[in-house]
Formats: sequence, structure tokens, C-alpha cells
Amino acid sequence: MNILITNDDGIYAQGIYKLACALDNIANIYVVAPDRQRSATGHAITMHEPLRAEKIKFFDKDFQAWAISGTPTDCVKLAIEALIPEKINIVFSGINKGPNLGTDVLYSGTVSAAIEGAILGYPAVAVSLADFKDVDYNYAAEFCMSLAKKILDNPLPEDTLLNVNIPNCKKETLKGVNITTLGVRKYKNSFIERIDPRGQSYYWLGGEIMDEKNHEGTDIHSIKNDAISITPIHFDLTKFDLIEQVKKWNIEIN
Amino acid sequence: MNILITNDDGIYAQGIYKLACALDNIANIYVVAPDRQRSATGHAITMHEPLRAEKIKFFDKDFQAWAISGTPTDCVKLAIEALIPEKINIVFSGINKGPNLGTDVLYSGTVSAAIEGAILGYPAVAVSLADFKDVDYNYAAEFCMSLAKKILDNPLPEDTLLNVNIPNCKKETLKGVNITTLGVRKYKNSFIERIDPRGQSYYWLGGEIMDEKNHEGTDIHSIKNDAISITPIHFDLTKFDLIEQVKKWNIEIN
Repeated sequence: MNILITNDDGIYAQGIYKLACALDNIANIYVVAPDRQRSATGHAITMHEPLRAEKIKFFDKDFQAWAISGTPTDCVKLAIEALIPEKINIVFSGINKGPNLGTDVLYSGTVSAAIEGAILGYPAVAVSLADFKDVDYNYAAEFCMSLAKKILDNPLPEDTLLNVNIPNCKKETLKGVNITTLGVRKYKNSFIERIDPRGQSYYWLGGEIMDEKNHEGTDIHSIKNDAISITPIHFDLTKFDLIEQVKKWNIEIN
Repeated sequence: MNILITNDDGIYAQGIYKLACALDNIANIYVVAPDRQRSATGHAITMHEPLRAEKIKFFDKDFQAWAISGTPTDCVKLAIEALIPEKINIVFSGINKGPNLGTDVLYSGTVSAAIEGAILGYPAVAVSLADFKDVDYNYAAEFCMSLAKKILDNPLPEDTLLNVNIPNCKKETLKGVNITTLGVRKYKNSFIERIDPRGQSYYWLGGEIMDEKNHEGTDIHSIKNDAISITPIHFDLTKFDLIEQVKKWNIEIN
């Protein structure tokens, strides 16, 4: 089995290393990841400049590994369509430092890389550790190994993928695994205005999370209750049940 | 009425100017757009550096206009949450130079800006002229004006928006308006490898479009037949009908 691994924290992040080491027990590992931190890049691709793919030594491992000058989505495209001739069986993106829950998946480079895998026709998984402090990737990586086996036994339908968030706690305190929907994650007071030494203003994106509507069954509720969330994802943005309604507007060339 | 206009081609592009002039007939216009070309940025946001918002003179107009050092998504967030105190009635993103059809909407800064408008709770429209050469935005801009009126008369449900693609032809040759689904747009031979003067390889993202599966009813079919396509869009990526199936995998903490 061949597994392609990418992320958005960059190829030198601990999360991707731990993931690669765990999956190394069950597959040949190929790592193609951004050469630096590319968080919150969404599904960006690099069209207006060329991409560099530098073959690197990946920590203490002998995996084939490339550091890419582009986004997570670029990495998956380039890996599958240019760098790796072998047939890939699963695309894993992660382990991200920090959660990718609810509405936030739209901004996530981690999830977008997995979406790109699915667009190209491969089973794909995005994995995030739902914390920014004192992160311990060990159990999350171990969980990915068993999840990879599950995916081989239970093929995902075309054009779908899994978004996995794992609480940052010891295996013993985890409260199980929930198959979830994406919750709603919105922010208030998003921008902080500051003045630079030359008197000009600038803005930092900040914001406090408002997680009001996240009932049981959502990924956000699951993580709050120390359970792993797995959300099946698709990428057809068509709002089918609105088509007939908009037809009734009688929009015409006029 | 107050309309916020943004785009991903940058604030100095002709498409945003034509759109703003047309909508000026029916609303107060606020323009908040990237200070340069930001195509294919997807739903990227700027988290690791601050944003600058420079108030500029917008062509020959007296609209309030800001050039932003970030992505289209940043522009909408910043406009609504920091720059414009007035209540916005509609967010328009465009007019993009080039189509945003099918799977490609995932990569589109134009569509992502409109999605951000919808996330923040506003009616939103992404508009693209489906051509790169000899572009004539005049009819497309006129169409946006009548569409804005339709949206005021027919409120869109929460968390939805419209993705509009307009053929680059004269009004007389347009074959009508279709309310569509997103088609499937995939590419082959995506990367072109080149060697630089120092013998190092690099890659250009290229690719030939493969539009096989695009039956009547899709946006791609509509544009091929010289008709305007309007696709209702949502942004909940949950694949609901896969939840029960994945539950049967019996994934557990182990």
C-alpha cells in the first residue's frame, strides 16, 4: 500500500512526522508538503508563478519526501500528477496543529488538501489535533493507522472524504468516536485595529469563537466532550433544493 | 440600498469598475477589494500578518473604496466587520475575468468572497464573465443590476448565495438564463516541467479541461450554449448521507 501525506503546517512540523511514522507500519510513505507554514490558505492553488519541488531528507526517515513552494492543494496535485509514479491508495493530510471544525473547514489548508485528493479520485482524510498548546500527537497518529485500515476495508464513495478531529488528551480519557456533521463556527470582534510607528493603521484578524448552535451530532459538540469526531465531507457546493425556487424568479435577458 | 463590491482580479480591474458603475444606478456603492490580482486564492484568509486597508480614489468615481493587502475573503470580512458602519444589503463579487464553473469554484477567490458574505449573513452573488479574451463587461454589468433587484424582491435563504457566469457575447446572441447545478470540471496533464538556467526543474500548473460529464442542467453546459448560468450555492460540506454508512464501520478508540 502507498500513502501520500501532506499538511498545511509545513513539512518540518511535528504533526506530519508523527503521522508518517505511524502509517509507516502499514504502507510505503510518500511525503509531499509545503516548505513552510501555509495555514488558512483554503483551496488556493499557485497559477501565477511556477512551483519548486525540492527532494529533502525527512527527519530521520528514508521516505521519499519533497518540500513544495506552494499550497497544500498544490502539493497533492503535484504529487499525484508529476512526482509519484506509483499508485497512491490513500491521501492523508495532517496532523494539523489545531482543530478544523464546522465552518472553519472552508479556510483550512489541511482539509483542502484532502479535498484535492478526493477530486483527483483518491480516498482522502484530513486529520487535526484539536488544540494549540501542549500538543501530543502520539495517540492521534496511532488512531490514523487504524483508520487507514478501516478505509481500505470500507471504500469511501467517489467525491467524498473524511475530516477527523482528535482531542488533545490521553487515550484513557477519550470518550469514544462520533460520526458527525459540521457544526457552525462563527466569530465576533474579528479585527483588532492597531497604529504603526508611522501613524498608519493596520488590522489583525482575531475574533472570539461563538459556538452557540452546536448540538449533539456536530463535530464541535463532539470535541467539546473529548470524543474524536469524523465528519464525512463532499465538495459539491450546489444548493439543489434552491434551484426550483430561483427558477420561479423568472430571470430573463432584458 | 448599500452594496458592497469586491473581486479577486484586484481593485484596478475593469470588471469591478463596470460592475460598480452599473450598480451605482440602484444603490450606494462601497468597494473593498484586493490591492492586486489574487486569483485562485480559494477561501484563504490572512492570519499570520496584519492587513492594510488603504482608502483610494476608485477610477473617476466618488464611491468609498479601499484597497486591501489581503485575499478576497479578507476584503469581505474587513469591509463588514471593520470598515463600513452602514448596513450592507447585498455583497457582489466580480465581475471576474474568466469563468468560475463546476469544480473550479472551490479554487475561486471570486466565489469565496461571496461565500464569506453569506457566512456573515448577507445576500451574496459571485459574477464571472466566461472568457479571457476580448472581454466586454457591459451587458454582464447591466444583468447584475437587474439581478440585484430580483434578489431584493426574492430573499435568498440563510447560508446560500448565487454563482453567476455570463457568456462573453452581445445581448442579442445570448440564449437566455438557466438555473443550474455545478458541473464537473477536471483537468489532464496538469503540470508542465521546465528547467531553469541553473539546471533545476520547476513546474507550471497548466492542464487541459476535460468536460465530459456535463449534461444539460449544469453551469458548464449552459455556458457552452451561450446562456447565462446561475447556480445556487451553499457551503455546508457535510456529506449527510454518508454518516450512517461510516457509523457501520464501528470505529473505536483502541
